[in-house]
Amino acid sequence: MSYRAPVQDIRFALEEIAAMDGLKATGAFPDLSGDLTAQVLGEAAKLANDVLAPLNWPGDRQGCTLKDGKVTTPDGFPQAYQKFVEGGWQGLQFSTDHGGMGLPVAMGCALMEMLQASNMAFGLGPMLSFGAIEALIAHGTTEQQELYLPRIMTGEWSATMNLTEPQAGSDVGALRTKAQPNSDGSWAISGQKIYITWGEHDCAENIVHLVLARTPDSPAGTKGISLFLVPKFLPDDSGNPGERNAVTAIGLEHKMGIHGSPTCTMEYDNATGWLVGEENKGMACMFTMMNSARLNVGVQGVGIAERAYQQALAFAKDRRQGRAPMTQGEAPHAIIDHPDVRRTLAVMKAKIEAARAICFHTAVEADYAEHHDDEEERAWSKRREDLLIPIAKAWATDVGVEVTSLGIQVHGGMGFIEETGAAQHYRDARIAPIYEGTNGIQAMDLVGRKLAMAGGAAIRELIEDIRQTIEDLATSSNPDLNGLAEDLGPACEALEAASDWMSKAAGEDKLSGATAYLKLAGDVVGGWLLCLGALSAQRILKHGDGDEAYARSRISLTRVYAETVLSAAPGLVPQIRLGAGALFDPGEAMLESA
Amino acid sequence: MSYRAPVQDIRFALEEIAAMDGLKATGAFPDLSGDLTAQVLGEAAKLANDVLAPLNWPGDRQGCTLKDGKVTTPDGFPQAYQKFVEGGWQGLQFSTDHGGMGLPVAMGCALMEMLQASNMAFGLGPMLSFGAIEALIAHGTTEQQELYLPRIMTGEWSATMNLTEPQAGSDVGALRTKAQPNSDGSWAISGQKIYITWGEHDCAENIVHLVLARTPDSPAGTKGISLFLVPKFLPDDSGNPGERNAVTAIGLEHKMGIHGSPTCTMEYDNATGWLVGEENKGMACMFTMMNSARLNVGVQGVGIAERAYQQALAFAKDRRQGRAPMTQGEAPHAIIDHPDVRRTLAVMKAKIEAARAICFHTAVEADYAEHHDDEEERAWSKRREDLLIPIAKAWATDVGVEVTSLGIQVHGGMGFIEETGAAQHYRDARIAPIYEGTNGIQAMDLVGRKLAMAGGAAIRELIEDIRQTIEDLATSSNPDLNGLAEDLGPACEALEAASDWMSKAAGEDKLSGATAYLKLAGDVVGGWLLCLGALSAQRILKHGDGDEAYARSRISLTRVYAETVLSAAPGLVPQIRLGAGALFDPGEAMLESA
Repeated sequence: MSYRAPVQDIRFALEEIAAMDGLKATGAFPDLSGDLTAQVLGEAAKLANDVLAPLNWPGDRQGCTLKDGKVTTPDGFPQAYQKFVEGGWQGLQFSTDHGGMGLPVAMGCALMEMLQASNMAFGLGPMLSFGAIEALIAHGTTEQQELYLPRIMTGEWSATMNLTEPQAGSDVGALRTKAQPNSDGSWAISGQKIYITWGEHDCAENIVHLVLARTPDSPAGTKGISLFLVPKFLPDDSGNPGERNAVTAIGLEHKMGIHGSPTCTMEYDNATGWLVGEENKGMACMFTMMNSARLNVGVQGVGIAERAYQQALAFAKDRRQGRAPMTQGEAPHAIIDHPDVRRTLAVMKAKIEAARAICFHTAVEADYAEHHDDEEERAWSKRREDLLIPIAKAWATDVGVEVTSLGIQVHGGMGFIEETGAAQHYRDARIAPIYEGTNGIQAMDLVGRKLAMAGGAAIRELIEDIRQTIEDLATSSNPDLNGLAEDLGPACEALEAASDWMSKAAGEDKLSGATAYLKLAGDVVGGWLLCLGALSAQRILKHGDGDEAYARSRISLTRVYAETVLSAAPGLVPQIRLGAGALFDPGEAMLESA
Repeated sequence: MSYRAPVQDIRFALEEIAAMDGLKATGAFPDLSGDLTAQVLGEAAKLANDVLAPLNWPGDRQGCTLKDGKVTTPDGFPQAYQKFVEGGWQGLQFSTDHGGMGLPVAMGCALMEMLQASNMAFGLGPMLSFGAIEALIAHGTTEQQELYLPRIMTGEWSATMNLTEPQAGSDVGALRTKAQPNSDGSWAISGQKIYITWGEHDCAENIVHLVLARTPDSPAGTKGISLFLVPKFLPDDSGNPGERNAVTAIGLEHKMGIHGSPTCTMEYDNATGWLVGEENKGMACMFTMMNSARLNVGVQGVGIAERAYQQALAFAKDRRQGRAPMTQGEAPHAIIDHPDVRRTLAVMKAKIEAARAICFHTAVEADYAEHHDDEEERAWSKRREDLLIPIAKAWATDVGVEVTSLGIQVHGGMGFIEETGAAQHYRDARIAPIYEGTNGIQAMDLVGRKLAMAGGAAIRELIEDIRQTIEDLATSSNPDLNGLAEDLGPACEALEAASDWMSKAAGEDKLSGATAYLKLAGDVVGGWLLCLGALSAQRILKHGDGDEAYARSRISLTRVYAETVLSAAPGLVPQIRLGAGALFDPGEAMLESA
């Protein structure tokens, strides 16, 4: 059940596919270099491999407990969190102006993958703090920033996001938590929030809750929502945790997975809070966090899939059953040599690499969108980021579920036994398609908002990029790369056809095909990025200036993806075009079990 | 969390799609009639709905315990088992000559679906006894049959299958349990068996273990395996449970799901047993059970999917969030009216119906293979049964996992909370693709043995049948049915092309594409059978002699399946042709996480 952070794979995706090194030219990351990347990722890998990974399975068994409003996390979590704080990891991707390490968001994603892979339940704590830091940098007052940011940035204090209420899930606008103004400029927050990740715990000395609530006489729906900062302990005059605020964990969810992550019901009973950003503009503040949070959940899909994959691969090398058709030597042979098992592993690996590439490409574009010195380039990258965020979130988390399920399957009967550990990954992975906007919500965002952005520019630009890659593959001197073009070409045409259809379809027809469209888009974008990697690998082979065996493996793995995933992509177009009529005209009777 | 057995859906699949009524003409089922079917299924539904379903969730929470070799099943299980015994359900599908009810295997499958849907952990007990009855009817001595069959047939005694050992999972031939002859004609069985479903429990007064073991000097591998009957209590002279035999449950697995089903490690310490069938022919005896057991596991996939679907449908009608684009009236609207949710539900329902149709068609053909008075017809039906068994097992259990996962997704955040119950179905469903031969083993059986049977006759005959249906659809007066032909046609061509490729491919290439081929075959066969149902529905509409609203729903649901699943089927052909070279030529390096 050990985990070894795949530093070479991560660097390949960051540097060879997502071209993170180009960010140096923006001037925002003067120290960025291959050496720095190697050093930072190497240190992060130590934390993940040696500190967090061993706590994963015991944490699942033990879970969290709530007593008298206090949450106890699994044994070892508080100590591991201290090591996370000591490493300064929470501030990795934030500006040095605010006390961060000043590295790209893309490096933050790489760190996040390792945290989530090594211990998803633990990794959720830092993930939530990431989002809160972003919101405070973007929308907090100078006073709020000076008081809270340094302490959240170190990890000494953690942070949460409080959106959901029982009647307000996907429909955030239905929330009812109230904020009443106090005479001193603060607000009194009252209401109940559910599903609050790391809402209460014993790892940090204070917890800063970012809470969506309604002020008196605010407009209905999302236009009447404001964001408030509500600390567990009110900072005293020195900024240290002082008086206990009236916010309490009153329940812990009994979940299928991520048992080590306390999912709390939080009660706010005239708790003292401060407005973040403008009144009634809370949704805008949430959207600031949202892109980052959704990308990080996509990365979580990558991480949990990688973890499950490593375990399945190790098992397949070790477990011997029967005679494999192409294997010499005495049976029983290792099951990795059985074609069906090897295919399963190859497809798992290829999909993980594709999902990782989608997430890291999105992250690098987010960095460009923030830091490029050319305004048009910033806008281009922002469009790309915005387009890919729902794909990164939904496609990568679906891969997380699929790969962890295949991980169980590779184990056979042992996969169903909890002690093996494969089942935990499968249980843990299942939350990621749900939270931060269900994958259905992502698909609606993609077809409803993102395709229409700037007159459809983002998808057009994406298809242009893919076409360029097809041409590069087709004109390569390596016939293996020519072969990739034969799968990427029709897949790209399918994406274009489906996108054209979407641009003309009625709203309800778009929504009826949204999930299928997102799958097609993810299949194609993932394949395109793997092909970019194959082109990089070909350059390494040509110039002999890198790990040639590794480069060859990248091309081989891309072929597996192309011939299994990309080749099936055109077949998805008809179901995208299904239309609402097929679903709604027959009435609910069609859906009844009779 | 309630469950209502879908009697009308089940009858439609049995009677309109699988044409079970035709079995009456064989003479083997003289009482078979629509009335009898309705009455039997109605009674079975009462047991499932009222007795078993309410025990499902508490059974998951409580699980089983082992103390001093005794297993305690969850509260209510022993009483529910008594009701199962009182109803005579265990003998439903077995000849009256042996004390059964003398109904078709297809009716047994219908019962099995209800048992598994209402309470999968409970249903496993009867499922295992079904298989043992078949083995004893086919291979037991008259003495064994007279002593054991009546008691297992009533359910007073239950039965198990003991194959797996730690080193012998998919490779049964690697087992080591020993059988030494005793002087009185009995045998002394020694060894350890793992993953023994209902190996020990408190529901029946005796447990009859069917155990695979090796006799002295037996040949290596599967050719040296014999089957033994080992009762927990040795029958006394009156045939009642007497002396305790030396077989003990020494461990209970801690599993991800089916917590109410005791999965035991069994220790045989010179336990007394009797040979069933000939020495060294144990595998043949196991194969007798295997078809039935594999079909029943496929039915289990249908059952657990149906259960999850009913829960998701009820939730989607009840839960209100946001504004649905095509819905009048004040928001929030029920989420069933959101196109993405409705599509999810429609696809779930369509796949369940397809999986049910595959299983019941297979079962009816199994009945014909046994009872048709024409030898050629028997052989034809046997080929069809043999061809479809791996598809029924693997495709339907994959649908079980997929649909239970979608069931969670429909629930959003609540789906991940154990108290909701959706998570249990997802956890329970995950075992079905693993046991009774993993789905990879099924795929290998399909491409390695079943396609080649009788010179490829079975797949040719299947494709002929599908072609006939395409013609019937294309010439229908109902344009909706003409539309179905447009999806079924290319899907059938894809299956034919893939089958042709398989017939010529090298062994390792076949195996590399086996899982993808099985998926294609299931997608197409499921669609074909739904189309048969649509043709039946059209006849009902034309003659006005049935439930017309229901008939219209069947056609509408078939359209959803055709436009989502069948339309994507041709896209699966390239990945079937992937070939072993793409997987093995790059070496294991391609699979390493670096």
